[in-house]
Formats: sequence, structure tokens, C-alpha cells
Amino acid sequence: MANQRVLLASRPTGWVAENNFRIEEAPVPQPGEGEVLVKNLWLSLDPYMRGRMSDAKSYVKGVDLGEVMVGQTVGEVIESRHPTLKKGDKVLAQLGWQLYGVTREANKVDEKRAPLSCYLGVIGMPGMTAYFGLKEIGEPKAGETVVVSAASGAVGSVVGQIAKLKGARVIGIAGGADKCRTLTDELGFDAAIDYKAEDVKAALARLCPNGINVFFDNVGGDILEAALANLARGARIVICGAISQYNNTTPIKGPANYLSLLVNRATMTGIVVGDYVPRWGEAVRDLAGWVASGQLKRREDVVEGLETFPQTFMKLFSGENNGKLVLKVA
Amino acid sequence: MANQRVLLASRPTGWVAENNFRIEEAPVPQPGEGEVLVKNLWLSLDPYMRGRMSDAKSYVKGVDLGEVMVGQTVGEVIESRHPTLKKGDKVLAQLGWQLYGVTREANKVDEKRAPLSCYLGVIGMPGMTAYFGLKEIGEPKAGETVVVSAASGAVGSVVGQIAKLKGARVIGIAGGADKCRTLTDELGFDAAIDYKAEDVKAALARLCPNGINVFFDNVGGDILEAALANLARGARIVICGAISQYNNTTPIKGPANYLSLLVNRATMTGIVVGDYVPRWGEAVRDLAGWVASGQLKRREDVVEGLETFPQTFMKLFSGENNGKLVLKVA
Repeated sequence: MANQRVLLASRPTGWVAENNFRIEEAPVPQPGEGEVLVKNLWLSLDPYMRGRMSDAKSYVKGVDLGEVMVGQTVGEVIESRHPTLKKGDKVLAQLGWQLYGVTREANKVDEKRAPLSCYLGVIGMPGMTAYFGLKEIGEPKAGETVVVSAASGAVGSVVGQIAKLKGARVIGIAGGADKCRTLTDELGFDAAIDYKAEDVKAALARLCPNGINVFFDNVGGDILEAALANLARGARIVICGAISQYNNTTPIKGPANYLSLLVNRATMTGIVVGDYVPRWGEAVRDLAGWVASGQLKRREDVVEGLETFPQTFMKLFSGENNGKLVLKVA
Repeated sequence: MANQRVLLASRPTGWVAENNFRIEEAPVPQPGEGEVLVKNLWLSLDPYMRGRMSDAKSYVKGVDLGEVMVGQTVGEVIESRHPTLKKGDKVLAQLGWQLYGVTREANKVDEKRAPLSCYLGVIGMPGMTAYFGLKEIGEPKAGETVVVSAASGAVGSVVGQIAKLKGARVIGIAGGADKCRTLTDELGFDAAIDYKAEDVKAALARLCPNGINVFFDNVGGDILEAALANLARGARIVICGAISQYNNTTPIKGPANYLSLLVNRATMTGIVVGDYVPRWGEAVRDLAGWVASGQLKRREDVVEGLETFPQTFMKLFSGENNGKLVLKVA
């Protein structure tokens, strides 16, 4: 029994490449007093990880070269010296891109309430981001128009469905006819815009004749500008990410029409989901309830095998994944 | 007795030029039933007027070619067919760039409470913008750091002084040593940054070691980026204008580092003062009270003669004015 770990080998300039990572074998670590040894079953792949590969100042420090890439994991406790967790428990932890890890900070999850991979997606960090981003910043009201970018992704797909539950009209922006069909046919969106095939600004103008009340942005760049060009009076923009810009080698493109905020008395606000950790319970209760009742569908893109990790990660930025990207270890 | 009117002759591309205007003589208009004839004494010059010279869609329609340029005015009623206003009353109105005008919408102002030109500045539209922008969006708390751009201008100078009254630490950004001295020596700002002589980003980093809590932006462009680079957690940005960009022939420069809103959980919100007209009374009471008590100083840049209007207007964009720019007609 050996551990396998994906290390950050070099910092990317521009697009992430396979040689930014190195996979190494290592002994399985031993849990110290108060720790558990966890065998990872599911690993999460999320856009924020691109930021952790950089040493630029951000809200969390980046990964050091030669260290295991960070990330959330769901696994099984196989040895415990922890006061409350015991062997066989399934836990959500931050063990990163490896087969085994030790930690004293793991939260037991209930496989009966939801499939284990859900704890990385719809009722995990991406679900929380959607939940609090809408509840605390976007605040959609019944009858309002909500637009979300990267709508078929882990966060966007939950944003759209929660907004529907709140009675809003929901339009998703995604890349490709397949993803757009998923949005309207499986997830209940009112309309979808294929940014690879359509002029997004014109499509938004057509689909939002009274303007956008809430724009939940995961993409940035031209898509953000297209939304700014179509705001309703008093619109709220939730800035969650800017995946179109993460692999830039030139400076990020700022929204040239940001004065639309002035014209429309609108607001643009950033969200970092980590701020809401103390309120996780409230969100899990709602999200898990909606999953159980079938009101919140999860869409996962599952890839198998740790060795596929670097290539799988790159799918996030080329937009190849459809749904929450997770890696099944076994 | 003849009227003199400044008409919009052509729409500028880029910098405003004298030939965008035409001065013409015209008969003095006769007041109709319910109207007053007003002889203008003071005319206001404000950056928003640049937008009115354009036919691009904005929150208010632009001036038509051949029409009198819009603007606020303070004048004396010389003939009245109005139900409540009478000859000799001093009134605030929207009569634009001309010597005489008729209107049914004029508000009597009290010369004893404040000098007439104040109704165009510190207790007029610019003062209201500062007042409501801070009260409703910026919300500075005692001990917080407030930064304002175009700080010696009509809005900025009031923003800084109100923020001081609220107990904040206030830093102004202005162009030139003279203006900076005005801010610190006359208006009570804690510090001033001369953007023509200093690296604004570095100066903000030095002067705001704990970051900016409230940034009130009248300028846009590089100054907005410098502020975004120095936000405190939970910062509020009030987007009031972007004078650095109004004469652009290329697209406006959006803030390349707008993701600072995300990193710092910050908010950027537009204000249009016209939305607060129903609450004018509350603001006038506070502002006039502070003027009377000497807590709010007005700084005016007075130019005489209607014929100087086009050149005087251009001073706003070259930054030559120091304080609220007003034109004395007589």
C-alpha cells in the first residue's frame, strides 16, 4: 500500500500544462495523536485551484512548489487516533490531490442523506457559494430575471436552480449546445445562451427585455461586459469568479462599461464562500432538503483515476466538463 | 434687452472644443400663464454636462443640436405669471446656458441662509451627490479611511468634509500642489495625493496601511485601479463619475483589477443624485446647517460673463478649476 500524490512542480504562465504537476509515490502517512488516516474516495476539481498555483497575493496563500495540490476530498477513515471519528466513517476534508492523507480536521458526512460526491458539489463548497451568493448578495425576488455565467458548472447550475425555486426567471450562459440543452431540459432554466455560437450581448437583450436584475458571474471578460450592457435599474452583480481570465498572461480585462453601474444604480459585489463557514449548517439543511425532494438536481462529470488529474483539471478551463467535475479515486 | 444663449452646435468626438457651441442673440422670452421670467445671475458648470452633449444612451437624454445647453441656474424673477413666485424672488431652476429663461418649475431660495451660488454647489446638486452618496452607499464609520478622487471639485470637496464630520480619516486625490494644499489646509483633509506628481497606488498604500474602507470615485481610469489595489476588507466604492474617461475616443478603460472586489468582499455601486430629489429637504437642512456653523466650507472658482462659457466649461476636463466652477452672469 503506497500513497500517490500530485505535487505542484512549477507555476504556470498562461494555460496550465501537465508539466506544472509531478505525480510521486510516497509512503502512506501515519496518523499522529488526534488525527485520522483517510483513504480518499472522491477528489474535487475547482476553478479556484488555478489561483492557488500562483504566488500572487490573493485571499488565500498559494501552494508552495513541491507541495501537494490543495483541494477538498471525501474519503473513508481507515485508522483513527481522533477523539470522535472512527474507522469506517466517511469524511469531508481538505486533503488535496493524493490517495491518502492524515488530518485532525475532517467532518463526518452522511452517505444516507446524499451520495458522497455531493459533498464536493451541490451540498459542498460550490453549492454554498451559489446559496450564499444569491441569499446575501443577489437576493432575487419572484418575477425578477437572473442570469448566470458558466451556468452548467458546479456553482452556476446550483445558482440557476435556486433562483428558479425563488420564483425568478433564469437564463444560463454556457458553451455548446449540449450544455445549453442540459440547462433547459434537465435543470429547468427558462433559456440558455451558447456563448460559442451566439452574440451574448444581443441574446441577453432579446431574452431580457426588462433588463437583468441579478447577474451571477463566474466568467468575467466579454461575458461580464455583455451583462453590464443589459442591466435593469437597481441590478445586483455577484462577482464569484472570472474563469475566462485565470490563464491570462496579459492583465485581466476590466469591464469597459462598468459605468453601467452608475446609469442603472447597480451594485457589483464580490463573494468568498469561506466567509460563510459559520453558517454552513443552514445551507446544508436547505440544499440537502432540495436534493432529497428532487427540486435541486446535481449534474456531475466524473473522471476516474488519480493519474488523470492534470488533464482532467485542464478541462475546467477549456470548458469541456458539463457539471461539477469530480475525480473518483478507486 | 436681449437674450444671449449658448447652443449645442455639434457633438464632440473626444475633447470638447469651442466650435461645439454657438452663442446667439435672441429676444427675451415672454412668460406664459403659470410661468416666471428669470434673469440668470449664476450658471453652473458640471462634468455631467459632457454626457448631455452626446447622443449615446444614458440615464437622461442628451441635448439636441441647436438647443440651449442644459444646466442649473440661480436667478431673479423679473416678471411673474406664476401662482406663488413673485417679482424679485431668487430662484433655483434648470434654465441652462443663457441670460434669461421662462419656466414654471423654479424653487425659491433664501439668500439670507446662504450666498446664492451655494445653491449650485455645496447645498445644490453637487452637495446632494456627496451627501447621499456617502449616506446611502459609502456609509463611512468613525475611524474608517475614506478616499475621494477629484477631491477639490464640487462633489469631492463636500464628500471629504462630510466624511470628516462623521469621524473618518480622509484622503483626497487631486491634481497639483495648490489643490492639495487647499484640501489639507483649508478643508481639513488628513492628507492629499497629487496625482500629477505622485504614483497614486503607492501613495494610497503608504497613506492607507489598513486599506481603504470607502472610495468615492469621480474620476475612473488609473485612479480607480489604484484604489481597487488598496481596498480594505468589506470596502464600499461609490461610482459617481469618471471624468478621466468622458472625452475618450477609444472605449472607456475598465478597471483591470476589479476582482479586488472578490478578494476583499467589496462592493461597487453607482449613484445618480436625481433619485434622491424626494429627500432634498433632509439634505439641505444638514448641509446648510454645516455651512452656517462653519463646519462645511465652500470653495468656488468663479468666472464672469456668459461669453466665456465654452472655454470655462473646458477647464473642468483639464482640471484647471479649483473648487466648484460657477459662472457669474453680470
